[in-house]
Amino acid sequence: MDRIMSGTLYLIPCPITEGGTTEVIPLETSSIALRCRIFIVENVKQARRYLKSLDRSTDIDVLQFYSMGKHADDVEQSSIIVHLKSGEDVGMISDAGCPAVADPGWELVALAHQNGICVRPLVGPSSILLTLMASGMNGQSFAFHGYLPIDKTDRQQGIREMVRSIERSGATQLFMDTPFRNEKLFQDILSNAPDNFNLCLAQDVTGPKERIITKSIQAWKSKSPDFLKIPMMMALGH
Amino acid sequence: MDRIMSGTLYLIPCPITEGGTTEVIPLETSSIALRCRIFIVENVKQARRYLKSLDRSTDIDVLQFYSMGKHADDVEQSSIIVHLKSGEDVGMISDAGCPAVADPGWELVALAHQNGICVRPLVGPSSILLTLMASGMNGQSFAFHGYLPIDKTDRQQGIREMVRSIERSGATQLFMDTPFRNEKLFQDILSNAPDNFNLCLAQDVTGPKERIITKSIQAWKSKSPDFLKIPMMMALGH
Repeated sequence: MDRIMSGTLYLIPCPITEGGTTEVIPLETSSIALRCRIFIVENVKQARRYLKSLDRSTDIDVLQFYSMGKHADDVEQSSIIVHLKSGEDVGMISDAGCPAVADPGWELVALAHQNGICVRPLVGPSSILLTLMASGMNGQSFAFHGYLPIDKTDRQQGIREMVRSIERSGATQLFMDTPFRNEKLFQDILSNAPDNFNLCLAQDVTGPKERIITKSIQAWKSKSPDFLKIPMMMALGH
Repeated sequence: MDRIMSGTLYLIPCPITEGGTTEVIPLETSSIALRCRIFIVENVKQARRYLKSLDRSTDIDVLQFYSMGKHADDVEQSSIIVHLKSGEDVGMISDAGCPAVADPGWELVALAHQNGICVRPLVGPSSILLTLMASGMNGQSFAFHGYLPIDKTDRQQGIREMVRSIERSGATQLFMDTPFRNEKLFQDILSNAPDNFNLCLAQDVTGPKERIITKSIQAWKSKSPDFLKIPMMMALGH
């Protein structure tokens, strides 16, 4: 296990919104992405397009791509570790935002640590973090739950658990759902959270239709949002 | 309350490490920062230095700075809202990383929402998010607790509560402490977390001494880290 000889596993964020501007990607992140020759990515076509958008002169054909799914294939993961151990750097790119956060990739990062490989996370957009910043809610402690349960009873129970968490610790609770369930989720929140709590709806974060609005549950009850049909991050808190 | 007439409150991240490179700041973030003329900042001297580092030709003397503390002054907050309502943009900059996340600023963001002001979070470094990405732990659900309690009994209870959270939900738990308490915190974690849990220690994230290492509690017990004396983010999980 020789750290000096091994390559580095770089975690490379990409824009959150489809076809989004690379102006949200810092210079350090794009420089390192353009130096890597081997990648493990969620979607090969999309990753190629992203690398090309960082520098049009990039020769995509000399790059080597491995695929990862929600449960990355063991064989592909082993190949990546072999590359890293032989001193080659590897870049990880997921579909939107930061790899391994609300996106696949963390199993391979864990495997890298087990093999004594250096892991470097690079800076880029995260809809979770950006929503928290802009929510106007407690940013000293918070929790992210991913997707709430699909089943109505379980979902309502999930909301009530978040309410208890907020009452107990004051921690802001972040979560999301698919666009076609947003309306139901919104109604379930209005029915299960106290009137004096705040709910932040964040749509198309970093995109052209970005809109981040925080109101009390009481205020949302008197005027529902007209923009529940697109991907959205939500935050509930004091 | 006219959204079209009002200015925008921009949340402007800065480097995490003192004197850190602006290569971690995306072009969109720096362009907007350089367009603002009014700022509310945690530390005026540091904010001036940061804006200068984004563009040496910036005329710092024409900029207007308001201060915010851990509990931002009501008068300063009201002045900012007046600026925003009169159509002027305002930039918020905290000491390190993202404003309003483990840093002051969220009360003013809340006030902006109450006044119907548009809030735009900009992309930049967050040691919480970067540690989570690089930890190799569950990034589908997680919680951040800030500083654990100083009192030994309370701190140990806090650790045991995080252990129960992990056992119940699998959510990764992130937290930090001041450098001189890291050694005690580390020992308390070893004594209170199961051997098969993982602990990630992330030091100087994005800085020249960055080192992010995840090992099982059992492995940490047999070989303690030699780098507990500097600021660190920690993650505990499966």
